[in-house]
Amino acid sequence: MKDFWIWVPTKIVFGRNCLDELADSLKKWGGKDGQEPRVLLVTGGGSIRKMGLWDKVTKIMDDAGLKWFEYSGVSANPKVSHLRKGIEFARENKVNVVLAVGGGSVIDEAKGIAVGYSYDGDIWDLSTELNSKGAAVDTPVLPVLTVLTLAATGTEMATGCNWTNDTVTPAIKRGLHGPEVRPKVTFENPEYTYSVSEFQTAAGSADILSHIFESYFSNVTTAYMQARVAEALMKTVIKYAPIAMREPDNYEARANLMYCASWGNNGYIVKGNQVNWSVHALEHELTSYNDTTHGEGLAIITPRWMEWVIRDETKLYRFVDLGQNVFGLSKEGKSDLEFAKETIQAVKDFFWKDLKLKTRIRDLGIEHDKLAMFTEQVCKKLGYLAGCYKPLTKEAIEEIYEASY
Amino acid sequence: MKDFWIWVPTKIVFGRNCLDELADSLKKWGGKDGQEPRVLLVTGGGSIRKMGLWDKVTKIMDDAGLKWFEYSGVSANPKVSHLRKGIEFARENKVNVVLAVGGGSVIDEAKGIAVGYSYDGDIWDLSTELNSKGAAVDTPVLPVLTVLTLAATGTEMATGCNWTNDTVTPAIKRGLHGPEVRPKVTFENPEYTYSVSEFQTAAGSADILSHIFESYFSNVTTAYMQARVAEALMKTVIKYAPIAMREPDNYEARANLMYCASWGNNGYIVKGNQVNWSVHALEHELTSYNDTTHGEGLAIITPRWMEWVIRDETKLYRFVDLGQNVFGLSKEGKSDLEFAKETIQAVKDFFWKDLKLKTRIRDLGIEHDKLAMFTEQVCKKLGYLAGCYKPLTKEAIEEIYEASY
Repeated sequence: MKDFWIWVPTKIVFGRNCLDELADSLKKWGGKDGQEPRVLLVTGGGSIRKMGLWDKVTKIMDDAGLKWFEYSGVSANPKVSHLRKGIEFARENKVNVVLAVGGGSVIDEAKGIAVGYSYDGDIWDLSTELNSKGAAVDTPVLPVLTVLTLAATGTEMATGCNWTNDTVTPAIKRGLHGPEVRPKVTFENPEYTYSVSEFQTAAGSADILSHIFESYFSNVTTAYMQARVAEALMKTVIKYAPIAMREPDNYEARANLMYCASWGNNGYIVKGNQVNWSVHALEHELTSYNDTTHGEGLAIITPRWMEWVIRDETKLYRFVDLGQNVFGLSKEGKSDLEFAKETIQAVKDFFWKDLKLKTRIRDLGIEHDKLAMFTEQVCKKLGYLAGCYKPLTKEAIEEIYEASY
Repeated sequence: MKDFWIWVPTKIVFGRNCLDELADSLKKWGGKDGQEPRVLLVTGGGSIRKMGLWDKVTKIMDDAGLKWFEYSGVSANPKVSHLRKGIEFARENKVNVVLAVGGGSVIDEAKGIAVGYSYDGDIWDLSTELNSKGAAVDTPVLPVLTVLTLAATGTEMATGCNWTNDTVTPAIKRGLHGPEVRPKVTFENPEYTYSVSEFQTAAGSADILSHIFESYFSNVTTAYMQARVAEALMKTVIKYAPIAMREPDNYEARANLMYCASWGNNGYIVKGNQVNWSVHALEHELTSYNDTTHGEGLAIITPRWMEWVIRDETKLYRFVDLGQNVFGLSKEGKSDLEFAKETIQAVKDFFWKDLKLKTRIRDLGIEHDKLAMFTEQVCKKLGYLAGCYKPLTKEAIEEIYEASY
């Protein structure tokens, strides 16, 4: 096990009545040092209004006499142009606590506003190459609270956030992270995800699974406990994602997916281990290019990345674990390589049959000639990918994109 | 999944160089509001001196110019008489941060001192029936930091603590808990457990496993993720405890056991689930009576409790999970009951063969006629055990003790 420190102080309030604690939490975090709480409510499009959650949250704040200011219109894969205006809006209204109500994009932009509020320069200058280790933010950050409406990114319990710079061509996806960026309180009511579409449920589940893969495929074989916990989380996704797609108001399925998303990306299975992020590095180019839903891109690239990895016979061990411990396959009479291929087939079946996600980049409306540009962009990140499960080369990147096309 | 909240803000600093952060952490937590840090160092017997840890910790404090005051002599299963003196000692020296260096007993007594420091009455009055739900402490608590030397109780990341009242007959074991009782920072260097004896390694591992069992055997079948994570932790104990017994300086084994102990009892697998604590309730009587090592008592009672439970055919499901998912047994061609019995045999083999722990209460030096008194004591706790996996009755308690004798 590698040396590490872990500190995950996000309070999760979970269940049907979780918002009973919302007003007190806003008063606590906004009212530090005797200030009057001034809440920045960050929202996306209209979905939280349709389900009545906007009414509920604003009524709670009004009933508690809280001053609040809404900044809405966060898009999927949030854009830095919108984030910049949000920072201005927050400053104009002198807010002291940020409440994100939505999915990963809304929360990430809320985090960006919380960081940018006290930062003199442009937020994009703080946004470093995604997942680079040196990107920690140490400027003051407004406290962020979240009401989650999508089981996917895990940002509701994580230190990171990212957005796309839509003012440059090609657009670039970058982010930042830091211990104070992690939300202070996250409210999780599985019922708030009942209205998530079958496709978004599937894509979110692919995202959760991919986060787990990224630390599960690790060279640190001595982080045994972390690997077994990762398998526990993967089993949870694989069991409940298809149920939630079929029965959108199945509380048990939505609850397990929601809680699993939070623990899949909060550092727990990563610390003491080695993060990989290879597949994320490849996928982020698709999302940056045409707003491909992140989870769908991951479901396309992951199996092709795996097929590239298993050509290295020293990297088969995790595929053996995955097949046996997660998919429950029998290895009897099979070589490691044969079994690894069977495991990858199970991953494909899950992503493409059970989750019904697309299988090829061409189906995302991306032209073939863009692959070379994506490859160039990923090559710029090779530095921070150096320690991953099987370090990528330019040839490998080309090949994986080609196989995925 | 049941409604819940979870908040686990203990920072774990893990690895060979973890103490590099000790001085700064003491200054941060002792130096709040501009105070001069004054550290209460709580220790047990001589083991930390023998391994050089006492020298290391005190040198770090001296080099950092920290004022510190040592209160030593904490015994296994800490005694309230010693705890009371510790509270007096802490007050006399006006400490503002508590540093426990040792195993679960040292940390629990340190927590008691941290709570008692600002409490006007007697600490025993705050100590409620063990594990009772209404026992939360809401008085001010001094910050507690720990340097862990034993993988066992998990108190280094948990909200609870307990001790024995040695001034009454029969002695009673009680405790308290509360969010502020949870340590702020815990330093875990697996090397500090190299000198733990084969027996204490085994007993500590039995303790970890029992904590996990107590929430794994749950009526909340919808807390799927928690059950799978519990299995991940159990696999970790079962794999590494025998290795650590054979090879006391195996870093990988000690690291996995140490980190697993912390996560086995910090609330993660409990929240959203239902706690059981039946076996703990039965075992605490043995420890109260003659200082039986807690883990050894658990290893005796657990299999007999299981044999009593499986007479109820509605309670077989977790034994089926346990046998398949943790012990890797094949259920093919076996009824649930047959398979549950096979699973219990695997539990016995682990406790009694792999861990080499005692199999019967009579071997602990406890006379048979004490069982009736133990039964009476446990009956007083039946109220808080009401919601557990299979609620105990007086007859059941008698029978389990008898079978364990």
